[in-house]
Formats: sequence, structure tokens, C-alpha cells
Amino acid sequence: MPRTSKRKIIIVKNIGFCSGVERAVKIAEENSTKYGKVFTIDSLLHNETEIQRLKEKGVEVATENSVGNTIIIPAHGSTEEEVKKFKKSFKNIIDATCPLVLRSAELIKMMKKEGYKIAIVGDKGHRETMVLQDTAGENLLGVFSKEEDVKNIKFSNKIAVIAQTTVTEEMLFKINNELLKKGHEVRFFNTICNETIKRQTESIEVAIKVDCMLVVGGKTSANSKRLFEVVKKANKNTYFIDNEYGVDNIDFSSCNSVGITSGTSTPIWLIGKIIKSVEK
Amino acid sequence: MPRTSKRKIIIVKNIGFCSGVERAVKIAEENSTKYGKVFTIDSLLHNETEIQRLKEKGVEVATENSVGNTIIIPAHGSTEEEVKKFKKSFKNIIDATCPLVLRSAELIKMMKKEGYKIAIVGDKGHRETMVLQDTAGENLLGVFSKEEDVKNIKFSNKIAVIAQTTVTEEMLFKINNELLKKGHEVRFFNTICNETIKRQTESIEVAIKVDCMLVVGGKTSANSKRLFEVVKKANKNTYFIDNEYGVDNIDFSSCNSVGITSGTSTPIWLIGKIIKSVEK
Repeated sequence: MPRTSKRKIIIVKNIGFCSGVERAVKIAEENSTKYGKVFTIDSLLHNETEIQRLKEKGVEVATENSVGNTIIIPAHGSTEEEVKKFKKSFKNIIDATCPLVLRSAELIKMMKKEGYKIAIVGDKGHRETMVLQDTAGENLLGVFSKEEDVKNIKFSNKIAVIAQTTVTEEMLFKINNELLKKGHEVRFFNTICNETIKRQTESIEVAIKVDCMLVVGGKTSANSKRLFEVVKKANKNTYFIDNEYGVDNIDFSSCNSVGITSGTSTPIWLIGKIIKSVEK
Repeated sequence: MPRTSKRKIIIVKNIGFCSGVERAVKIAEENSTKYGKVFTIDSLLHNETEIQRLKEKGVEVATENSVGNTIIIPAHGSTEEEVKKFKKSFKNIIDATCPLVLRSAELIKMMKKEGYKIAIVGDKGHRETMVLQDTAGENLLGVFSKEEDVKNIKFSNKIAVIAQTTVTEEMLFKINNELLKKGHEVRFFNTICNETIKRQTESIEVAIKVDCMLVVGGKTSANSKRLFEVVKKANKNTYFIDNEYGVDNIDFSSCNSVGITSGTSTPIWLIGKIIKSVEK
């Protein structure tokens, strides 16, 4: 007997990997096919389920003692020190850094040359931010995650503001407003990834229409967590899950319509599994 | 019989002319002594009482038909077109533009060369803003007096923000926050005059201590009107007067202490007259 009241599922239009992550995964897969096994400097992207799948295909996170033919720089980039370290034990270093992160690093180098202090708006300890921090070197003014972080910063004549690609514009603009008080000239570069912004906007559009909302993303994924925050504001019945098993703990009894979105490091095949779980 | 309950008067520490206005007045007086009579392009500063005093000393605002030896560019500056026009009927053009305004104009020229669109935060129609607007020429993005003014502006890759020297930081920061949404790179120059900011801060410090507060300034003076706004927030018994006669209309019966401050185009001799009126 067919079910008469099947749950309506609405998928956010642009879902799955962003172009930067897609590129990094493609580079890793191609090289593992070629060399049998490749290593990556830290996690290639912030999604445990995808990292597991890649591991089965021969893509592995390098440790201190790893030695091999090829090592890949992950989507969030790497510091010069890391590259130097791994150069000793690997023949090829392949760069899969997201082009937007590379661009932020280039902007920092340019601003350093022009004598600016570098203010990075981002999550402390996040790989991308650490890479930018490393690029800023002695010119670093600080890493700022909230307005209060700016309070005790000294006044500088010239400040350049660069953001981690996955922060919200709200966060960036608020912190920038505090930085304005700390410099005579403040040079602001909006380095937030457009795909991240678009994903947020499209997800909110779906969230306000549905009974419940699922945000799929890795536990260590900055953009997924941020997406969850903004979607939750639009629909209080929003749940963060990192794989298809997360669905089991959710009570869907009053959810006739379910919206699904994901962070930009979530593979599309995982979304497929989640849809099946929700339809069950 | 001496009065026993004399009114306490507290004068804000840095009162009277700012250095830019003081310089302009000095230049005008020296030249009028030398040449008997000098003209100025528009009002030398925004204080009618002082303009009147200068007129008696031979400093007069030029009209379309004025002809003479010397004409002075006022503290707020002049457009190239004005200079060109008056060059025909005057031998000497003496520049008494405030150095901070000249600096803003220099920044605009530099930013134009580097391909930035120029956003001016200031009062529409104010001489200083008009001069900056003129300097920006075809690169002008707009003149912004409030956040809403930014709404319909097109997205530009590179925007440079320059402020009229006498706006409040609150106004500047709010408008800048909206401009951040309109450009990939926003280059912000805090061109607000420090003396203006200091005057505001010191006036607020006095205002919160006294029963009543007097803000002395010309009716067309942007910095005086702004000073009145911020002081009024700190003490609701704040009055704006442009000369000593303004005191006559104020009921001081419940004001045991009176604070006095002034815009940066108010001469110190006028403050003296006002103190006498309040003491009466």
C-alpha cells in the first residue's frame, strides 16, 4: 500500500561541495589513482565522512613520520613551515589550496609590503586563519572573532582587514566597525567566499518555508557551523547532523516539510543518503 | 551688596577657534592690514559675528563683480572653478584652506589615480563637502549623510571613503558599515578633525556635571550644530546660541551651574561676552 502523506523534502539549490573543495577532492583522487597512495597535510577538508571515503581510496592524512611520493596541500592551505617540513620526506608537493585563500594570502603579502598592520577576521585556530596569520608574520595586528577582541589593540596608522572566507558578513562588518577606531586608515577587503554567502541566503529562503530544517556538515567545519547558526535564526526547528545516522535522533512527527542544506565541505553522495533516511 | 549665590560657570578647556580657523583669520587680518581691503571666496568661516568683525577690519566676502588686489580661499577650501573665475579679477590668490581639508583633497586625488570610486561622508551642500566632491569629479560615488543614502548605490570593486572633517565618528562608522556591502575593497580614511572630536568629548564631560549647558556657534556651522547634538544627548538643558543676545531668552532660574562650549569657528572674544551676559 502506498503512503498517502509522504513527507515533503525541499533541497537547497546549490548544495554539496563548493568549487574550492571540489577541486581539492578531484586533485586528491586523481593523484591516488596515479600513485596508489597519497598523503595530505592535515585534513583535506572538514568532513569526517568524506575523509573516511577518501582514506579507502588511498588518500591519507600525513603524520610526522609519513614518507612517500606525493603530499597534497589541503583546501584551507598550509604554512611555509609545514611545506618545508614535508619537503624532506616527499618528492612532490601538490597545492590544492582554495584559490580564494591563496588570493587572501596574496593580499596580505601586498599589504605587508605597503606597511600595513594585518587584521584577520576569523576563527582562532582554524587552519585557514592560521595560514593567513602565518603569512602576516610580524605585521599581524591580531585575529579577531568578536567585537570585544579589538578592544585592547593599539592604534596603528595603517590597518588592512582580511577575512577568513567562511565568516558571516555580519561578523565581519561588526568587527571592522571596531577596527575603524584603531587606525587612521583602514583598508578593508571583503574576502568572504561568495558561494558561502549564497549558500546561507538560499538556505534561509528554504528554512522560512518548511517545518523543519537539516543542516548537514562536519563537526569541525567552520562554514557548516556558521550555516547552522544563520539557518537556526530563520527556523528554530533546525538540526545539525554530520551523517545519515544523525537523522535517527530527530522527531519528525510534526514535520510535514523538511528542508535540507549543507556546508560547502559536505559531499553530495552524503546528502543522497540523508534524503533516504528522512523518507523512511 | 555682593551677590551670595553667584552662578557657577564652567568653561570647556579647549574653546574658541580650532587651529585651521585661527590660521585663516590670521591670514585675512594680516593681509587686510597690508592692503587695506581684502576679499574672501565665500565666508571665511561659519560665524556671522566674527564675519561682521572682520568686515569692519576690511575683510569682505567677494561677489561676482568684485575686483581687487587680494582674494583669500576660506578655511573650508574652494573649487578649481572658483579659483579660475576669481583669477581674472584678482592679482593675488591666498590659500587659507585648513590643512586637514587640503589633505583630504590630496587623498582623493591619490585614490582617483588608483582607480577608486570616492565616497564622501558629509553634509550635502556644505562648502568643504562640495570642494571634496569637486575634487572627486567623475570618480565620485556619492555624498552620504545617513545610512539610507547608501542603499541604491551600485556595487564598485574599489571604494575609498573620505569624511568631511566635522562629522561625528558615529555617523562616519555607520555609513561606512553600509558602504562595506557595496564594494569588494573599501579603503577608509578617518579624516575627521581631532580637535573637533576632542571638543565634543570635553564638552560632554562638562555637560554631565552642570545644570545647564550653552553651545555657542554660527547658525551655518556644521561642527557647532553637531556639537549641540552630542551635548544635548548628555544634558537635556542644552541651548544653542550664536551670540551674547541669545542668553536673554534662556531661563537660568534653576541653573546653579552653567557649562559653556563652542564650535571651532567661534571666536574667544564672543565667549567672553557670553560669560558676562550669563553672570548678569
